[in-house]
Amino acid sequence: MDLENDLLLRAARGEQIERYPVWLMRQAGRILPEYRAVRGELSGFKELVETPERAAEVTVQPVDLLGVDAAIIFSDILVVPEAMGLEYQMIEKKGPWFEKTIRSEEALKFAQTNFDVEDRLGYVTEAIRLTNKELNGRVPLIGFAGAPWTIFCYMTEGQGSKTFSESRKILYTNPTLAHELLNRITDVTIQYLKAQISAGVHLVQVFDSWAGILGKEQYAEFGLKYMEKIANAISEVPVTLFAKGAYNSMVDLSNLKCNTVGVDWNMRMDEIRGHVGESRTLQGNLDPCVLYGTHSEVEKETNNMLHSFRSRRHIVNLGHGVYPDVDPEKVKTFIKTVKSYEIQY
Amino acid sequence: MDLENDLLLRAARGEQIERYPVWLMRQAGRILPEYRAVRGELSGFKELVETPERAAEVTVQPVDLLGVDAAIIFSDILVVPEAMGLEYQMIEKKGPWFEKTIRSEEALKFAQTNFDVEDRLGYVTEAIRLTNKELNGRVPLIGFAGAPWTIFCYMTEGQGSKTFSESRKILYTNPTLAHELLNRITDVTIQYLKAQISAGVHLVQVFDSWAGILGKEQYAEFGLKYMEKIANAISEVPVTLFAKGAYNSMVDLSNLKCNTVGVDWNMRMDEIRGHVGESRTLQGNLDPCVLYGTHSEVEKETNNMLHSFRSRRHIVNLGHGVYPDVDPEKVKTFIKTVKSYEIQY
Repeated sequence: MDLENDLLLRAARGEQIERYPVWLMRQAGRILPEYRAVRGELSGFKELVETPERAAEVTVQPVDLLGVDAAIIFSDILVVPEAMGLEYQMIEKKGPWFEKTIRSEEALKFAQTNFDVEDRLGYVTEAIRLTNKELNGRVPLIGFAGAPWTIFCYMTEGQGSKTFSESRKILYTNPTLAHELLNRITDVTIQYLKAQISAGVHLVQVFDSWAGILGKEQYAEFGLKYMEKIANAISEVPVTLFAKGAYNSMVDLSNLKCNTVGVDWNMRMDEIRGHVGESRTLQGNLDPCVLYGTHSEVEKETNNMLHSFRSRRHIVNLGHGVYPDVDPEKVKTFIKTVKSYEIQY
Repeated sequence: MDLENDLLLRAARGEQIERYPVWLMRQAGRILPEYRAVRGELSGFKELVETPERAAEVTVQPVDLLGVDAAIIFSDILVVPEAMGLEYQMIEKKGPWFEKTIRSEEALKFAQTNFDVEDRLGYVTEAIRLTNKELNGRVPLIGFAGAPWTIFCYMTEGQGSKTFSESRKILYTNPTLAHELLNRITDVTIQYLKAQISAGVHLVQVFDSWAGILGKEQYAEFGLKYMEKIANAISEVPVTLFAKGAYNSMVDLSNLKCNTVGVDWNMRMDEIRGHVGESRTLQGNLDPCVLYGTHSEVEKETNNMLHSFRSRRHIVNLGHGVYPDVDPEKVKTFIKTVKSYEIQY
C-alpha cells in the first residue's frame, strides 16, 4: 500500500523532503490519558503488550492525537529474551525483573534459538498487521528490537542497574560465554526483525540503551560487532541504529550499514554531523526535559535545535524516550514547531 | 606532621615521583571482611558514618590491609544535604532516600546555610582527626564532598534515578530556584571542605557523580560554574575534580583551578591527556570490572593501562568505585602491579 505520508522513509534514505519528519520515542504509551484508559482495563503492561488488538490501538493513538509522522509498534525489547526462555515481570515503579539469569554455560538452556519466532512472538506481528489496517497508509509503522548488548545486560543482570556490573563481569571472566549468548540473541533478533518486516513495518530501529556503560574497545567487541550483524542482515527496509551514550563509538556506529543514527540528548548534533557528513540521517535529539517548560520555552528550544541542523538529513525526535509526566499539550507544541519549520538546505 | 609517603601529593602537584601512587574510590568499606565486621556491630551505614571512632577505623583498614598510598575518609556525600535540613535514609540494596525534596521556593527552608558546619558535621572532622592520629603520617588522608550539581540532584529528586528527570525539569521550569539552591549547596560545601582541611585532610576531591546526565551547555551553567566556585575557594591543599560521564566538558573542567582531574573508565586517557597536556594530573581509570578477572588478567589489564600513560602526571585509581563483591586479593594484585611498574617519563 502506498503511504500518504512517507516523509520518515524519504528522510531516512536521504531523499528530498519538504519538511523534517517528527516522532517521539515512547510516544505510544505513558503520556496519553487515552493510553492510560486502555491500560487501566487490563491487568498490566505485559497483558497490553501481548494483546494485539489493544497494542495496535495504543500504537495508533499518537498518530490520531498528536499528529506524529510515524507510528512505532507498542511493545517491549524484553519480549525477545522471554521468547528465548527467560520470563520477565514488569514491576510497577521498579522496572523489569527476571527470576532466572544467565551467568554460566549451564544456564544457556534459557537462551534458546531453535524456535519459530512467529510461534512465540506472533502477538507482535499480529499487532503490526492490525495497526497497519487501522493506519490505512496514513504514516509508516516502525518496528524495533533491543540491541544484543542491551538484551545481554538484562539476561545476565536480571534487572535494571546503574552499572550492570554482573553483566560486565562476564566480559572479563567468561568472554566465550558472552559471545555465545550475544550470538544467540543476534540470531533471534534478526529473525524477529524480519518477521516484523514481513508483517508490514516500514523501518526498523535497534535500541542499544546500555551502550554507554562500555568503553570504546569493549563496545566494539561486545556491542557494535552484533549491531553490525543485524544491520548487514536487513536490506528490506531502512535501518536506524541508536546507541545511547556511546560517545566514543558514534563514528564506528555510523559506518555500519544503516540509514539513520540516533543521537541522544547529551551529544552534540553538530559534532556528530561533522563526523558522519551527509552519508547518514541523524535522528534526535531534544532533551525530553524541555517538554516540562512553558509552551514558549518548548517552541524556543525546539527552534534552537532545528536552527543547529546543517543538513536536510534529519529525523526530529527527542534524545531519549518521552517522560511519563509530560503534558501532551507540550508534545503537540513540539510537533507543531517542527512541522512549521522551513528547511534551509 | 611530615608524611612518610607523600607520593599522592607530589603526583597531584606535578612534582617528581619515583612511581605512580595508587588508591581506590570506595576503598573504605564494601569489599573488606574487616569492614563488614565493623558494620555488622552497628545498626547500619549511617551509624557508621556518624560514629567517628568506627569511621576512622574503617578508613585506616585499606591502608593496613591493601597497602594503598592514601586513605580517604569514610563518609557519604549526602551528609551535606542532611546538615542543610534534608534528612536521608540509606535503604539496603536500594540506596539513599529523602522523605522531603526541594522543588519549590517554599521548600528552600530545608536548604539552610546559616549554621556552623562544625556543629552539624563535627562527626566528620572528628573522624578525620582520629584517622590522622591512627595513620601517624604513614599516608595522606583525602577529604571529599559531592559536587553541587550531584547534591542538587538528590535534594530535588529525593532518591537515585537513571534520568533524574525531576531534577532536570527544574532547570527548565525554574532556573532561578535551581541557581539559588546550587549557590546554597556551594556555600555549605566550601565551608565543609575547609573544615575538613582544618581537621587535617591533605587533599580534597569533589565528586560530580551525575555530571553525565547533562549536555555541555547545561553542565556549564548548572555544574561547572559551581565546581569553579569551590575550586577557586580552596588553596590550602591540592584539589581533585571528578565529573563522571562529562565527556563534552573534560576540557572545560581541566581548565578550572585544580591539580587533578578524575577520568572515568569509559573515557580514553590518551584523549584526555591530549586535551589537558601536562598542566594537570589525571586520576583513574581502570574498569572496576577488571577486578573480577583472574589475577593474571588483572595484572595484564593494569599494565595495559599503565603502558597507555604518556606522562608522569598520573594517580592510579579505578574509573569508578570498587564494586562490593570484588575479591580483596584481586585488589592487592592491582595495587602490587602499579607499585612495581617503572615510570618511563
